[in-house]
Amino acid sequence: MAASTASRLSPPRFHVSPRSPHPPLRRSRFSPVRAAKLEAVLSIGTHLIPHPRKAASGGEDAFFANSDAGGVFAIADGVSGWAEKDVNPALFSRELMRNSSNFLNDEELQVNGDPQILLMKAHAATSSIGSATVIIAVLEKSGTLKIASVGDCGLKVIRKGQVMFSISPQEHYFDCPYQISSEAAGQTYQDALVCSVNLMDGDMIVSGSDGLFDNIFDQEIISTISESSGVDEAAKALAELARKHSVDVTFDSPYSMEARSKGFDVPWWKKLLGAKLIGGKMDDITVVVAQVKTVAVPDEGGDIEEQKGNEQGIAVAVASAVQNEE
Amino acid sequence: MAASTASRLSPPRFHVSPRSPHPPLRRSRFSPVRAAKLEAVLSIGTHLIPHPRKAASGGEDAFFANSDAGGVFAIADGVSGWAEKDVNPALFSRELMRNSSNFLNDEELQVNGDPQILLMKAHAATSSIGSATVIIAVLEKSGTLKIASVGDCGLKVIRKGQVMFSISPQEHYFDCPYQISSEAAGQTYQDALVCSVNLMDGDMIVSGSDGLFDNIFDQEIISTISESSGVDEAAKALAELARKHSVDVTFDSPYSMEARSKGFDVPWWKKLLGAKLIGGKMDDITVVVAQVKTVAVPDEGGDIEEQKGNEQGIAVAVASAVQNEE
Repeated sequence: MAASTASRLSPPRFHVSPRSPHPPLRRSRFSPVRAAKLEAVLSIGTHLIPHPRKAASGGEDAFFANSDAGGVFAIADGVSGWAEKDVNPALFSRELMRNSSNFLNDEELQVNGDPQILLMKAHAATSSIGSATVIIAVLEKSGTLKIASVGDCGLKVIRKGQVMFSISPQEHYFDCPYQISSEAAGQTYQDALVCSVNLMDGDMIVSGSDGLFDNIFDQEIISTISESSGVDEAAKALAELARKHSVDVTFDSPYSMEARSKGFDVPWWKKLLGAKLIGGKMDDITVVVAQVKTVAVPDEGGDIEEQKGNEQGIAVAVASAVQNEE
Repeated sequence: MAASTASRLSPPRFHVSPRSPHPPLRRSRFSPVRAAKLEAVLSIGTHLIPHPRKAASGGEDAFFANSDAGGVFAIADGVSGWAEKDVNPALFSRELMRNSSNFLNDEELQVNGDPQILLMKAHAATSSIGSATVIIAVLEKSGTLKIASVGDCGLKVIRKGQVMFSISPQEHYFDCPYQISSEAAGQTYQDALVCSVNLMDGDMIVSGSDGLFDNIFDQEIISTISESSGVDEAAKALAELARKHSVDVTFDSPYSMEARSKGFDVPWWKKLLGAKLIGGKMDDITVVVAQVKTVAVPDEGGDIEEQKGNEQGIAVAVASAVQNEE
């Protein structure tokens, strides 16, 4: 409350350019190219690094990415508490992702591409015991990204060097996220955060399990993306930076800052010695980086299929860490 | 870098309840009431407190709220830099809101309820010189809230005591937001963040100009909402708490924290005396609080109008501060 040590903020607001009498003419977002239309597609890069103590088993995260029909990706983070009940937490997340991928060819989903319905069907088809946080994102040809998320997987959209869209985590209390579960006490597709965002050519999507966003700040994501030559390199660089922070006990991570803000701290006698609760969070780290591109396709019904695919030609990949980690 | 002062975080993840063999049966979000359907509508409360030095003129924020056809609201924050050019910054924001309200009856908008199109039309019809940040939100009967935002007006959705959705501000650099402008150098509807979120009965929407979100933290918003008996009371309480913080030079506000994170600080000689850049941000403060309710309407085409309106019966209100501030 020392008023004398406080300074009032008063940086200037926007200084405008000389006025003109009328608002500018507006252009349509897509140029009217004759006999062709523009469709949005995703180039997708992925990288998964398991928890250091779970490297042999591949960790408990799972994901899939599919560039067909615009682009779809999903991430599931198996809740590790199941190990205490002698259940392998990876089984549920992996089966959920496998089922999600399989249902992409479902007739209803071919029509509406609704990630919440995909989650509902994949969940109902999953017979493994366990639970997982999950995010599913589907890009419509129009450029709208549709998202369904349960728990604390994250997704951010970066446009012109800034985070212009970000989803909020859902949790029961600190470190206990909402989760799709084999148990009646868990959450279902009805509890999902369901939202969408209109994307533009060049937008970058960064999605991941909490192992990514607990260990890396927005500004680091933006600079890492800008220094990477493509989505694969960006996904790998983000995962490796998050892993580096995750094992650094001196790094004041987003996770440790969140913990302190929720009242967690070191014992009082450590506080007296100047200690505070810091450090990264060791966890499985899954990263999906996707770039939006608009491609021209013929406006006839005919041979569109060849042209609308992702230029990187990423096939369906239901992945666990073993495949991705050196 | 003192490793000895760091403590590793290891709170437990979710402890699950005893397993059951199958996932629970899922219920449809809306119960199947015969010969009636459920539609989502908004109860809307608003409050505007102008900048202390602009109280006489009513400030430069403007807004409208309309509960017809589900619910629509919009906020515009006139960019104050125009005063240096002898332009009243309130004229543009007020005309933009007036035009937005008028275009609600536009045939195209009656059909698609698209806030980005509403912004385009309102902007094109606005002849005042100036610029403004702006947010427009439209609730569809299905419960989907469609949002178009240019700049740093904010919107958060609170469900079960937590922020489950929040939009990101867009800015050119610190304290210089994207803005709809009378000038060609400004932004247009094409630069808007366009997104949507599926809402449920009971969800609370808190939207406002940056004068609200620069001076109040999420946890304060949640507790203020929970202590208020209705949307009007909540809007007023939020505005008054933000005003209190805005004139408090000892309050470490979201604005001062953001400023420091962007490298702004007090001069070095003040730093030596232990000072840091803190304080609220004096500004116009506009608050819209809206609660989602589902109401039953007959499934015939007939006399739906009477039942789908907002129970609070809020009429169209294009408002400046004079009307709201005591």
